[in-house]
Amino acid sequence: MNNKKIAVFAGTFDPITTGHEDILIRALPLFDKIIIAIGVNIEKKTMFPLDKRIKWIKDTFAKEDKIEVDTYSCLLVDYCKEKNAKYILRGIRNNKDFEYEENIAQINKELNKEIETIFFLTNKEYSSISSSAIREIVSFKGDVKKFIPKQVNLL
Amino acid sequence: MNNKKIAVFAGTFDPITTGHEDILIRALPLFDKIIIAIGVNIEKKTMFPLDKRIKWIKDTFAKEDKIEVDTYSCLLVDYCKEKNAKYILRGIRNNKDFEYEENIAQINKELNKEIETIFFLTNKEYSSISSSAIREIVSFKGDVKKFIPKQVNLL
Amino acid sequence: MNNKKIAVFAGTFDPITTGHEDILIRALPLFDKIIIAIGVNIEKKTMFPLDKRIKWIKDTFAKEDKIEVDTYSCLLVDYCKEKNAKYILRGIRNNKDFEYEENIAQINKELNKEIETIFFLTNKEYSSISSSAIREIVSFKGDVKKFIPKQVNLL
Amino acid sequence: MNNKKIAVFAGTFDPITTGHEDILIRALPLFDKIIIAIGVNIEKKTMFPLDKRIKWIKDTFAKEDKIEVDTYSCLLVDYCKEKNAKYILRGIRNNKDFEYEENIAQINKELNKEIETIFFLTNKEYSSISSSAIREIVSFKGDVKKFIPKQVNLL
Amino acid sequence: MNNKKIAVFAGTFDPITTGHEDILIRALPLFDKIIIAIGVNIEKKTMFPLDKRIKWIKDTFAKEDKIEVDTYSCLLVDYCKEKNAKYILRGIRNNKDFEYEENIAQINKELNKEIETIFFLTNKEYSSISSSAIREIVSFKGDVKKFIPKQVNLL
Amino acid sequence: MNNKKIAVFAGTFDPITTGHEDILIRALPLFDKIIIAIGVNIEKKTMFPLDKRIKWIKDTFAKEDKIEVDTYSCLLVDYCKEKNAKYILRGIRNNKDFEYEENIAQINKELNKEIETIFFLTNKEYSSISSSAIREIVSFKGDVKKFIPKQVNLL
Repeated sequence: MNNKKIAVFAGTFDPITTGHEDILIRALPLFDKIIIAIGVNIEKKTMFPLDKRIKWIKDTFAKEDKIEVDTYSCLLVDYCKEKNAKYILRGIRNNKDFEYEENIAQINKELNKEIETIFFLTNKEYSSISSSAIREIVSFKGDVKKFIPKQVNLL
Repeated sequence: MNNKKIAVFAGTFDPITTGHEDILIRALPLFDKIIIAIGVNIEKKTMFPLDKRIKWIKDTFAKEDKIEVDTYSCLLVDYCKEKNAKYILRGIRNNKDFEYEENIAQINKELNKEIETIFFLTNKEYSSISSSAIREIVSFKGDVKKFIPKQVNLL
Repeated sequence: MNNKKIAVFAGTFDPITTGHEDILIRALPLFDKIIIAIGVNIEKKTMFPLDKRIKWIKDTFAKEDKIEVDTYSCLLVDYCKEKNAKYILRGIRNNKDFEYEENIAQINKELNKEIETIFFLTNKEYSSISSSAIREIVSFKGDVKKFIPKQVNLL
Repeated sequence: MNNKKIAVFAGTFDPITTGHEDILIRALPLFDKIIIAIGVNIEKKTMFPLDKRIKWIKDTFAKEDKIEVDTYSCLLVDYCKEKNAKYILRGIRNNKDFEYEENIAQINKELNKEIETIFFLTNKEYSSISSSAIREIVSFKGDVKKFIPKQVNLL
Repeated sequence: MNNKKIAVFAGTFDPITTGHEDILIRALPLFDKIIIAIGVNIEKKTMFPLDKRIKWIKDTFAKEDKIEVDTYSCLLVDYCKEKNAKYILRGIRNNKDFEYEENIAQINKELNKEIETIFFLTNKEYSSISSSAIREIVSFKGDVKKFIPKQVNLL
Repeated sequence: MNNKKIAVFAGTFDPITTGHEDILIRALPLFDKIIIAIGVNIEKKTMFPLDKRIKWIKDTFAKEDKIEVDTYSCLLVDYCKEKNAKYILRGIRNNKDFEYEENIAQINKELNKEIETIFFLTNKEYSSISSSAIREIVSFKGDVKKFIPKQVNLL
């Protein structure tokens, strides 16, 4: 049981994007379980409420038994330890993401050296979009359908 | 009339800098018209009021018939379409700008593939300054005369 | 006649890629003429002979009256001047390209400040490939058809 | 007296990190005096009060005669001039820091060309941490002891 | 049998470094087998002969049953397919590595979309060294012991 | 005598550029002596012979008592130790330089932790040029006068 390969894919998912979906689907075969962990931080305002963000993730991966959805509000490495997850899964879209992720991964390594961060590159067709870009487009009444999983309806 | 080469140069211009001026003057021969479009966003606080920002741009380019000043408050690609502008003009000062601009340009491409983003490099003598740096210097009572077009008087 | 907007798109084109093709097609409406200029440098070994490289470019743009093919073996800014071209057209695929191109563009500016370098971003679907990658794949007998214009037959 | 080599090491130090300590200790032999200058900006909220931040720095460098602690609330180059400091000392942890620091250094050069910015690279063992990362870990009740000088007790 | 998680870790290993060793040891629990594949290219000169490079790798991982050593001289994705390996394992030391690796990974994706590239960050203590740096130090008679696995003796 | 602040500024200087000159002049007040050390490597072909490269440096700094010119053909940190130099002086022109320099500095730190690398940013007016760019321009008969110190005559 200890040997189960469990990964945590953390984020705010405000909302989930096709980029998130792409990384998860591609990483899934490598793990026995991936926990999508929504960081809950009272001070950080989101555009979409937590229950909707959870529902959209659940809808997106309804058919994937190995994917779970959860929330956390502590240090990510502490959450991983609690869940017996040895891996943090991250997607990287570009250079700027890499610079950010590299720093976070190194700090996590210093906080708990047992936990490894694994990186996948977002496929090019999904690499420009981000949750924040989607929120901006939504705020201007733009159409974001192509940027979110087809199971998600933001309205 | 459809064949007119119209570019949009969008920003907050809080305030206009010599860097903006440099890009516009150099790009002007390539286009029949460049619209300087000030993004108006109620939530985004600016240091200088809209009317002053418009006036400073108009003063800077008073002699340039091909430059117009306007405001917009929608998705930039939608504004371009409305104005029959096929080009978004952007200046790049450095690597960090590039990473940001590349992402925006790719999203704009996905939103409307008819509109092309064209990049000029800011000439070195103007490449360190930005509107935000000017605002910071102003807030400390520093002298910013060399960073803004000579037609502009911030006081 | 002086006012004609002429751009030079320089390279080795060993061989031409879909990335080159993409930039040229998208940039064409902005100019009255684009000269594809193959840098000829005796010391630089190429995989494909000059006559083939020229033929492939000509085949690719057979229907584009505004595109010319030529060779040059001097400083690019001197070639531009000779051709009365005020613009150097460059495609940028990623951050690494940008760092390289920025440096070249600044040097060209110092050599001749009359000539502007204009940048387009390579569309994502063509942004991973380069002539050197194609050569490597060819050397391993891999299939490069999807990376070169459909008018080109490397065999 | 004018020939004294004085450097200013400016920041918010909210709180001081082992990274700051590392740069200062390594740079000290090069200068006759280093002033650690805490930028005081009423609008910028800090996690730790000014008096504590000062005390922690003083405790860290209690044995270093050549290090002084001070506060400032003006343009950094003006503060340097007032203190007769010809050098701004900066640590760089990574690429992202460099991009930021390069821009600031160039602006400072334009504001006062007499003042030079000198860069040291943070040693690798201290290069992931930052004051903001420490604050985030603290906010989640994580242990930051290894990231701050041993003379500092955040509690 | 098809479901075995096999990764290929390709390189020239001229010579193997502590950085390579670090990535392999950390990635090993995630896979059922990792094949260390030495690219053999007649045109590329190496400092150390192939048999020594193989021996050093074998010595380094003598106790790891899940690690195999092999050579290949074709496209990496074709080699992976032949070996039934669905994963390419890569270590990233810094930004520059990332830019290079991102490009290769995208091309590999276009050549064979079944094969995923997985990235680990080299731990900081091993992140400055590379085989090429080791070769340079060796050429100047410097001591490289700390940069290579302890089972390796370059003499 | 041990306390003398000696820096080494190493390179190939093929040829010396205004960028080199700029860094040296600005760094000079910080040190008691700067040794310009030309790396001599039989395998590396240069455009200009060693005696000319030395002469040009000497001519450029004829009036600077604190600058010496020398050659070396060993590890740079070993040369520094031999010369009792505690500092390696480096100029950085841009991001790409930084990535390269950061790596070298970290390796040097591992080879000899007593020696510090100090970085200056090249001033913007000299930041595009490099020795290799000068050589390319020279090879095309271009004029490089503005890129080299006025005391240097390449002919």
